[in-house]
Amino acid sequence: MKQYSQMTATELQAEYNAVKQKYDELLGQGLKLDMSRGKPGPDQLDLSVGMLDTVTSSTDLKSRDGVDCRNYGGLDGLTELKELFADILEVPVGNVIVGGNASLNMMFDTISQAMTHGMGGEPWMKQGTVKFLCPVPGYDRHFGICEYFGIEMINVPYTDEGPDMDMVEELIKDEMVKGMWCVPKYSNPDGIVYSDRVVKRLAAMKPAADDFRIFWDNAYVIHPIFGECDKMLGIYDECVKAGCPDKVIMFTSTSKITFPGAGVAAMAASDANIERIKKRMNYQTIGPDKLNHLRHARFLPDIKAVREQMSKHAAKMRPKFEAVLTVLDRELGGLGIARWKKPNGGYFISMFSEKGCAKRIVGLCRDAGLILTSAGATYPYGIDPDDSNIRIAPSFPSPEELTQAAELLCVATRLATLELFTKR
Amino acid sequence: MKQYSQMTATELQAEYNAVKQKYDELLGQGLKLDMSRGKPGPDQLDLSVGMLDTVTSSTDLKSRDGVDCRNYGGLDGLTELKELFADILEVPVGNVIVGGNASLNMMFDTISQAMTHGMGGEPWMKQGTVKFLCPVPGYDRHFGICEYFGIEMINVPYTDEGPDMDMVEELIKDEMVKGMWCVPKYSNPDGIVYSDRVVKRLAAMKPAADDFRIFWDNAYVIHPIFGECDKMLGIYDECVKAGCPDKVIMFTSTSKITFPGAGVAAMAASDANIERIKKRMNYQTIGPDKLNHLRHARFLPDIKAVREQMSKHAAKMRPKFEAVLTVLDRELGGLGIARWKKPNGGYFISMFSEKGCAKRIVGLCRDAGLILTSAGATYPYGIDPDDSNIRIAPSFPSPEELTQAAELLCVATRLATLELFTKR
Repeated sequence: MKQYSQMTATELQAEYNAVKQKYDELLGQGLKLDMSRGKPGPDQLDLSVGMLDTVTSSTDLKSRDGVDCRNYGGLDGLTELKELFADILEVPVGNVIVGGNASLNMMFDTISQAMTHGMGGEPWMKQGTVKFLCPVPGYDRHFGICEYFGIEMINVPYTDEGPDMDMVEELIKDEMVKGMWCVPKYSNPDGIVYSDRVVKRLAAMKPAADDFRIFWDNAYVIHPIFGECDKMLGIYDECVKAGCPDKVIMFTSTSKITFPGAGVAAMAASDANIERIKKRMNYQTIGPDKLNHLRHARFLPDIKAVREQMSKHAAKMRPKFEAVLTVLDRELGGLGIARWKKPNGGYFISMFSEKGCAKRIVGLCRDAGLILTSAGATYPYGIDPDDSNIRIAPSFPSPEELTQAAELLCVATRLATLELFTKR
Repeated sequence: MKQYSQMTATELQAEYNAVKQKYDELLGQGLKLDMSRGKPGPDQLDLSVGMLDTVTSSTDLKSRDGVDCRNYGGLDGLTELKELFADILEVPVGNVIVGGNASLNMMFDTISQAMTHGMGGEPWMKQGTVKFLCPVPGYDRHFGICEYFGIEMINVPYTDEGPDMDMVEELIKDEMVKGMWCVPKYSNPDGIVYSDRVVKRLAAMKPAADDFRIFWDNAYVIHPIFGECDKMLGIYDECVKAGCPDKVIMFTSTSKITFPGAGVAAMAASDANIERIKKRMNYQTIGPDKLNHLRHARFLPDIKAVREQMSKHAAKMRPKFEAVLTVLDRELGGLGIARWKKPNGGYFISMFSEKGCAKRIVGLCRDAGLILTSAGATYPYGIDPDDSNIRIAPSFPSPEELTQAAELLCVATRLATLELFTKR
């Protein structure tokens, strides 16, 4: 088929009529589909139920160090889990804190601490309006934390190898720029893997603010879908080499390795950062749920076990991503009205429509029974300046549902674009 | 034996020599005892191991509402647990949030929120130096939270029926007094149960600050040791009657019902408070560990089951408390140098020595191999103005160890007092 931009007015009108009819047919089908949430499917959760049998009334309830995991004690997690996360995050064991069930909570708390107590300097709340760099499109919950604390967010566009570093290096000259969000591997939603060059530039850059921190949310650190997991340069090692180990704070969790909500989260940082954070934790918590740590340590005794688990997840995810990508290629390929990439890992497919169409597409889908992530959600303040990005989350529905959903999405994309083009 | 205050100098010297010899003998015994931490004994933890078998690979992993507890979803906990905590805290179900593994964390976060976002008014951090009323002796971790946030603490002495309410009613005229810590039942460490009269006065009082909150840490709400659990007036109902439902925020947990660290915490408050708190939680967390909620809901299906569980705990605790109390009565009774009460519940025995002796007693015990809670820990800033209170935690050691430990404590108390008296 011709690209829409090459069509005459008459051709566009004919195409509009045909697509409108298709859409109206879909409207009548009473579909109930959801591609909005990056949550694992039930078949993925089944991969971890064996973990629940590792800690029962008839198992040893002591950790490797002899700690009775049923009682109080320990602030930063079981040694065996610290070792595991040290391997995953490529940091020394002593620089790891293993916590509760959500890395989001750790990020929120770390920023909360910076606001009230600072990150080595004055409390951020006392310094004026703090700013954060936000590579876009990105993760709405990161932006939500900033919004909650009144932190001003500055969009930084992505290139194929990570955030636009020229822009980042310029923006960090402002000493009120105190932080930056990064999802460095299989970025949410674009699936971008930061290149070695980008990691090196992030590690080497010298922000005006001494208390600037990169919030390195490595949520998909070991989460491939197609082929081997991408290799990345270790940001912490690079920061150490560059003489600024304090600049980065890393986060990850087993939410998409074992159970979302019943997993284990971890963070890692320099000695100074960890000391600062543990000082707060001493007041805040009696320590993490060690029985859940024990379950994880027994189910995932080493990084090899995690990799095996993740290849099982990938096998469940592949047909789902393929279902969506196949439909996108077939229904939108060659029309020149949307672009997307096949991600190697992570949880999302990110589609960019013609400017000004994303909200309309999401609305058309909703009306016909398909829930998508709200247009704009992938940008600070919920505002996509181009109204173009749509986040597709193929993990939860079945491949059959995904095919239906993607077909509807394509019809909606064509219709919204034709509405725009025929109005011109 | 004569009261020490009735003894002549010669008698005191003779007593000193005799006690010093006893102490020196104990010094040589290489004891290793610990009465410092209010943590359950292993035999108490055994009471809950059956809970671990309620959630395994072969059990239904859905909540009563059909929620798959392995996946994301839900901010404030499983309905069945909200109902249970509503019964325990005597509040409507809709006013309960069930969270993670530590009520301490919920208290810290609530105060953190008040500091940065306020409690209906301006953020506390922007109002100047916030003050809290601290009934003393009290719980060191409450005081720690205040210290962390730079909240000024004001000691309020306890009477036998709760905090000195005349003093409280006077102090709340200061609009910078924004909060008050209460452990209303079996207070830590004195075991005091707030009388109906005190509860009514707390509910009826009108602080100058609209954003004043009582932090009602009902940690031992259902934790009797001797006899039936004491009945208390419901603070929330009283606040509602008094027209100020927002004044109190309640906390509790199963740390001493099931597993410390692997339990479930809950809070309850008015609609306005809960709405405010949930708004923050939306940014902070993906929700609690629902699989651990499910374990608890199945192991403790109703308040009757909790009461049965708590009577088993009481049976384990009684001989321990009796061991300590027997020795205190036998070795210190009649000497007029220390006072203590037999608590009906909770986790502690609180002993008051002669003024100026507590640190010395704790030091003498430590030198002879018995760890006690640091003298002063039960007061804000770690400063007991009388240097008199000693918190005894009999829950963890065996009755035999406790007898030994209490004997050493009594010798140390006599020795420290005699040192003081013979110097006069």
